[in-house]
Amino acid sequence: MTITRIGQVIKLRPEKREEYLRLHADVWPEVLRAIAAANIRNYSIFLREPELLMFGTYEYHGSDYAADMARMAADEAVQRWWKITDACQERLPSAEPGEWWAPMQLAFFRA
Amino acid sequence: MTITRIGQVIKLRPEKREEYLRLHADVWPEVLRAIAAANIRNYSIFLREPELLMFGTYEYHGSDYAADMARMAADEAVQRWWKITDACQERLPSAEPGEWWAPMQLAFFRA
Repeated sequence: MTITRIGQVIKLRPEKREEYLRLHADVWPEVLRAIAAANIRNYSIFLREPELLMFGTYEYHGSDYAADMARMAADEAVQRWWKITDACQERLPSAEPGEWWAPMQLAFFRA
Repeated sequence: MTITRIGQVIKLRPEKREEYLRLHADVWPEVLRAIAAANIRNYSIFLREPELLMFGTYEYHGSDYAADMARMAADEAVQRWWKITDACQERLPSAEPGEWWAPMQLAFFRA
């Protein structure tokens, strides 16, 4: 099995800092289930302050990334979750149309 | 065993982009050995362009982080490596004195 390592970046809105951290200290079980069902493992989100930069990284353990992401995006609980969390975030100005979290390239990996 | 998840951020100097990527596509074996000896696992570095933001993340699997980091920092090959890679990087203006990569806090983790 090939593990794909995903890294992405977004900004946190200053007025939403507490809400975002509180939400992520206790993510809804339905959302956690959808993440697992999408073959996502070892998902971390890190916050840098005072820049309010957030880095998200996870491993993808499945074999059809587009299909797994589409299924997750169609999940009703995930849609409700993203409506709340998207309001906490601000895209990078350089993000492409249609991108929310901005993708990064993997420059180094060592198990 | 407790696994600690470290996340940190730094900038890549534009004129050093190619050199840094080339170095990290083929990291010196002595440096890889020192990383492993320091109980660091699953070490990824991601690059975001055009911002040239780099995000480094790894798991620490040992029991004395300060001692392991000090031992790695004392390694002669690591010192030569850092001399080259530090010249490719620029600290965040907000980094504390003595910090190189700027630390982040873990806002979310799900295995």
